[in-house]
Amino acid sequence: MWAALLPVGRDTATGGYDRFVWTPSELECRAWFLDEARARSLDVESDGNGNLFAWWHPADGRRDDAVLTGSHLDSVPGGGAFDGPLGVVSAFAAIDLLRARGVEPARPLGVAAFAEEEGARFGVACLGSRLLAGAIDPARARALTDGAGRTFAEVAAENGVDPDGIGRDDALLSRVGCYVELHVEQGRALGPATPVGVASAIVPHGRWRLDFTGEGNHAGTTRLIDRRDPMLPFASTVLAARAAAERHDSVATVGKVRVVPGGVNAIPSAVAAWLDSRGPDERSVRATVADVLEHARAAARGHGVGVELTEESYTEVVDFNLALRDRVVRALGGVPVLPTGAGHDAGVLSAVLPTAMLFVRNPTGVSHAPAEHAETADCLAGVEALAAVLADLVRG
Amino acid sequence: MWAALLPVGRDTATGGYDRFVWTPSELECRAWFLDEARARSLDVESDGNGNLFAWWHPADGRRDDAVLTGSHLDSVPGGGAFDGPLGVVSAFAAIDLLRARGVEPARPLGVAAFAEEEGARFGVACLGSRLLAGAIDPARARALTDGAGRTFAEVAAENGVDPDGIGRDDALLSRVGCYVELHVEQGRALGPATPVGVASAIVPHGRWRLDFTGEGNHAGTTRLIDRRDPMLPFASTVLAARAAAERHDSVATVGKVRVVPGGVNAIPSAVAAWLDSRGPDERSVRATVADVLEHARAAARGHGVGVELTEESYTEVVDFNLALRDRVVRALGGVPVLPTGAGHDAGVLSAVLPTAMLFVRNPTGVSHAPAEHAETADCLAGVEALAAVLADLVRG
Repeated sequence: MWAALLPVGRDTATGGYDRFVWTPSELECRAWFLDEARARSLDVESDGNGNLFAWWHPADGRRDDAVLTGSHLDSVPGGGAFDGPLGVVSAFAAIDLLRARGVEPARPLGVAAFAEEEGARFGVACLGSRLLAGAIDPARARALTDGAGRTFAEVAAENGVDPDGIGRDDALLSRVGCYVELHVEQGRALGPATPVGVASAIVPHGRWRLDFTGEGNHAGTTRLIDRRDPMLPFASTVLAARAAAERHDSVATVGKVRVVPGGVNAIPSAVAAWLDSRGPDERSVRATVADVLEHARAAARGHGVGVELTEESYTEVVDFNLALRDRVVRALGGVPVLPTGAGHDAGVLSAVLPTAMLFVRNPTGVSHAPAEHAETADCLAGVEALAAVLADLVRG
Repeated sequence: MWAALLPVGRDTATGGYDRFVWTPSELECRAWFLDEARARSLDVESDGNGNLFAWWHPADGRRDDAVLTGSHLDSVPGGGAFDGPLGVVSAFAAIDLLRARGVEPARPLGVAAFAEEEGARFGVACLGSRLLAGAIDPARARALTDGAGRTFAEVAAENGVDPDGIGRDDALLSRVGCYVELHVEQGRALGPATPVGVASAIVPHGRWRLDFTGEGNHAGTTRLIDRRDPMLPFASTVLAARAAAERHDSVATVGKVRVVPGGVNAIPSAVAAWLDSRGPDERSVRATVADVLEHARAAARGHGVGVELTEESYTEVVDFNLALRDRVVRALGGVPVLPTGAGHDAGVLSAVLPTAMLFVRNPTGVSHAPAEHAETADCLAGVEALAAVLADLVRG
C-alpha cells in the first residue's frame, strides 16, 4: 500500500507532502482508498461531508454498533508521509490480518478517511469530523475560503458534495459504536521498549489570527518617523508569544504569515499572522493568548498600527472515554498511556462517540515536516496492536 | 491617456496596481504604449532587453545625439497609479505640446518605457536599464527567477526577446545624447509653492536577503526547548533592523517574507526575509546592514538556527550630471533641487549618459501604495515643465 501512496503529492526536492482536501494529490489518495476498499470487497460509503468509509459487514447483516477505525489522508503544507495515512493503511492491513486469522466480526468494522483534518486548505482543522459531529455550524463551514478565495461550498459542490447537505449526520452516527484511530506519535514520549501507546487526552488547543494594519509606503523615501509599519509590532509580538508560552507552561507558534503587498521596496500596509497555542489546561492557553494580545496592542499603538485578534478555532481538553481506553489497554496486555498536544478526528468525535487512539513510536518526534518518520518494525507492531484491539471489539 | 491606463492591472478592492513585467496587465500597458506612439506617428523600436522606444525624428533625418525621456510601466505589488506611468504619459503629452507650439526638433526626441524597473517579478530593480547599460551580467539576468520559479530567459523568450541577445547595447547608447525622466515625488520635499523639482542625487540603496534555516516540526507536540524555530530570530532581526537604521541615520525595511512550509500548525523549517536599506552615504547603509547581520547571527545561534545573508543588489550614490541639471533648472527658470531615496532608470543610465530627473509634487508623500497621488494641476505643471526642458534640449 505504501508503494502506491508514497509518491502522491510529494515534492521531490524537499520530500514534503502537499495533499490539501480536493486538490489533485488528495483526490489521488481518495482514489487509492476506493481501490483498497474494493480489493477487499468492502462496502464504500461517502457521507454528506466529504468523509469516506469502507465497511466490512458481518455475515448476519448487522448494521449497527459498528467499530470504526481509520484516520485522514490530507497533509499540512510540506508535511510528512505518516501523519494521517498511517492510520488508514494500518486499518486496511489490520483487516487483512483479521481475515487471515479467520476472525468473523459480530459488529460492522469500518475504515474511515476524514476530510481536511489538518485544516490546511480551509483553515479549520478536523473539518470533516466536525461537520459529521455537528461541532461546526454548516453555514460557517460553507463560507470558509481557501488561499485562492474559493469557498468550501463551491469546492465541495465541484467534488460531488452538496453544500446544502453538510452537517451533523445522526443516521450515520447512530450506527457507530466506537472509533479507534491509530496515528504516528508526534513527540518522543514512547521510549525504546514501547513501539505502541494509547492516548489519555488531547490537551486544549486553538488557532488565532492577528491582523496588523498600518500604512503602505515607499521603503526608500519614507522617513522612519513617518512610518506606520505593521511589520514591527508583528515581529515584536512573535517574541512576546514565545515569552508568554514560557510563562504559562504552554506552547505558542507563529507558522504562517501574510504580508500585504509583500514587495521588497514597499513598507507593508498589513501583516496577518496566525498563532497556534496549546497547553495542559484551558487557563494556560487563555493566559498565553491574552498576554499575546495585550503585547500586540501595545506594540501596535506604539507604531500607529491597528491590530485585531480573531479566534479561528478552540478545542477544550479531550479526555478519551475511560471504559474504551481500559478495554484497548487490556487487549494490548498493558501499554503506556499518554496525553498528546495534537488535535485529531478522534478528539472531535469523542463528543458524540466513545473514541480511543493508538500511537506508533516516532524516533525523532518530528512531525508536520518531511523528516517525520516511523520504523517499519514499529508500523508493523502498530498493525498488530490495531488488529488485536479490533479483534476484541468486533467480538461484540 | 489616463482613461485608458487607469483600469489596467488595478485591484478594484484595494485600488492597488499589479503590473509585473510580461504579465497580462503589463503587456496591456505595452500595447497602450504602441498605440500612443502610432497615434503620433512616432517610430517604434524595441531593443534586445525588453525596453520600448518611440522616436520623433527630425525632418533632416538626423539619428544621433537624441534626447530621451520617459520612465517605466511596471509596478510594485499593490502599487500606485503614478510611479512609472506618469513619466511616460507626460512624455507623450509634452510631445503634443511641442507640436502644438510648432517646435521642430533638431535632435531626435524619444519616449522610453524601461522594463522591470521595480524588480517586482525577477528581484532586480531597473533590470531593463541595467541590461541596456551593461550594469548587470547577462548570464546572471538570464538565471533570475520569478515567484513561480520561471527564469528571466524563459519568460523573455516567450515575449519575443532573445535571451542570448540581452546585454549592453552600444549601438543604441551611441545614438542617445541625454535622458530626462519625469517621476512622481516619493516623499514630501516639494512644498506648497513648488509643484515641480529637479533631482540632485539618488542616495545609496540596496536589497539583501536573509535566509533563516531551522527545523520544521509539529506546533503542538514539540516542547519549546526542543525547537529550532527560524521565526524567532527572524522577528528579532526585524526589530534590530529598525534600531540599526535609527543609529546610522538610514532607513531599513522588511517588506517581503517567505515562510516554509507556512502551515498554522507547523513550526517553520525556514524563513526568508528581504531587507531594503538606504542612507545618505555608503557608510551609513553598510553599517546598517552589518549591524543587522551581526544581530541575526547572534539571534539565530541562540535558537539553533542557521542564517545567511545575500546581497541581491547595491547601488552607489548617483550624482546626476551637473551640466545637464543646470541646463534643466535654467530652462525651468529656477526650481528646487533635491535628493531622493528611490532608485530610478535615470540613476542606472547615469553611468553611461548624462541624465536628469524632474519630480512632480506628491501631497501625502505616499508611494508604492494605492494612496500614491498627484493632483491633476501638478501633473499638468509637470508636462509643461518637461515640455520646456525638451524644447530647450532638442534645439541642439
